[in-house]
Amino acid sequence: MNNAFSFVPLSNALYKRLSQLHDKKFRKEYKQFIVSGDKLVRELLVSGLKIDYIIAEAGWLQEIDKRAVQRYTCYAVDEAVLKKLSGQVTPNRVMAVLPLFAHAKAVLPSKNERIIALDCIQDPGNLGTIIRLADWFGIDHIVCSNDCADFYNPKVIQSTMGAFLRVKVHYTNLESYLQEARNANVPVYGAFLKGENIYNASLAKQAIIVMGNESKGISDKIGSYVTQSITIPSFRVGGAGSESLNVAVATAIICSEFARQSML
Amino acid sequence: MNNAFSFVPLSNALYKRLSQLHDKKFRKEYKQFIVSGDKLVRELLVSGLKIDYIIAEAGWLQEIDKRAVQRYTCYAVDEAVLKKLSGQVTPNRVMAVLPLFAHAKAVLPSKNERIIALDCIQDPGNLGTIIRLADWFGIDHIVCSNDCADFYNPKVIQSTMGAFLRVKVHYTNLESYLQEARNANVPVYGAFLKGENIYNASLAKQAIIVMGNESKGISDKIGSYVTQSITIPSFRVGGAGSESLNVAVATAIICSEFARQSML
Repeated sequence: MNNAFSFVPLSNALYKRLSQLHDKKFRKEYKQFIVSGDKLVRELLVSGLKIDYIIAEAGWLQEIDKRAVQRYTCYAVDEAVLKKLSGQVTPNRVMAVLPLFAHAKAVLPSKNERIIALDCIQDPGNLGTIIRLADWFGIDHIVCSNDCADFYNPKVIQSTMGAFLRVKVHYTNLESYLQEARNANVPVYGAFLKGENIYNASLAKQAIIVMGNESKGISDKIGSYVTQSITIPSFRVGGAGSESLNVAVATAIICSEFARQSML
Repeated sequence: MNNAFSFVPLSNALYKRLSQLHDKKFRKEYKQFIVSGDKLVRELLVSGLKIDYIIAEAGWLQEIDKRAVQRYTCYAVDEAVLKKLSGQVTPNRVMAVLPLFAHAKAVLPSKNERIIALDCIQDPGNLGTIIRLADWFGIDHIVCSNDCADFYNPKVIQSTMGAFLRVKVHYTNLESYLQEARNANVPVYGAFLKGENIYNASLAKQAIIVMGNESKGISDKIGSYVTQSITIPSFRVGGAGSESLNVAVATAIICSEFARQSML
């Protein structure tokens, strides 16, 4: 099979534009974002999602099945250029530029459905890790307050390890969303340092699970919509231990316990 | 109260030495490591641990109770210098330099004790997060294979959020350690993608919990010592979801389930 096809050189203007996509403002303006890395881009190519163009090492373009990429404009660049563009220490061999997703408005969980709501999660790595674990626990939707880290931040996309293709992340006024939940009598669980021991709590199959900011937790405003406060008890007996868990770790433990109880 | 005391200016030689402490080789050579940030250093000051010296903004040294720091040599530096030295984006106001800990040899878990064993965990953030959650779940000891990330890496220390002061992290030949466990009939649980569903498994109170490398999982060598393979089932029904969970997230879920069952 002849895998050779024509590569387009990267213009200075396009290089600049790609660098700008690390910045939320420009992602909004250009309505585009970047997905980096061999594994993620290969997953993307089979997903059928629209790709605007691909930037890769010439070697990567030669290795991949031509049929997988021939319908896209492919720019061949040096490893050093890719490293600069991806902003990562570990060099990536390929990047794809995609149009922003068109996520529908956040809706309330259906019967037997859990949805995660995030109140001002700031760290992109935490957001990405939460998207990844939501995927694992079969959670299809995450509702973010507008001040959460940006879904399209390259660090978020990277740390989802591909789950950004499956879990829908909605940005909205979280208060209004939770007001709707209140009107519809949907249980809203909130993770606090003081609340009912999660292992003893009866966790509903239809639920919104609210997780708060890394240092401040759930804000008072958002907390007023919580119908059941839950907590992961510390098992450090006698004396002071850690004050809290990392928010992605806490979300994982809570989703695990919801999932476990749903099996009973 | 007069909080003024004399500050020592930072010499070029000391600046160089501090920069070198980001490198494992030099931490070993100088037998020192760095703890950064107001919160961690304040925790350190009340811990009674030996501190070699403190580097801080003059403002920080003026704010803190003189009695807390007067027995240490304190170097007053500019914010810009601290930022460079800490290697972090968010500027820290203070750093402390400490002698490396003298951790005793790893021993087997006592009756009712869980110990985490890590097989080649490479990401410093993951190691730090695991130390933090171990503290939460009352786990006092973590046994690391010699190829794990270095406990004294500033990113590890930072992400433990203070738990590095409580949880003992031992580096050892993990095979020999697990051979000891085998000889003593201590149950060794290993997290695999295929194993017994953790929610149905009967989890012993005395246990070693082995977690594997971020991309390769538990190596065959180490896996041969596992007496019970466990898995966190995916709840993504119908169709492909994420292939795995982040290792810190998986450790958290497993420790949570061990802790929950220990309450029954």
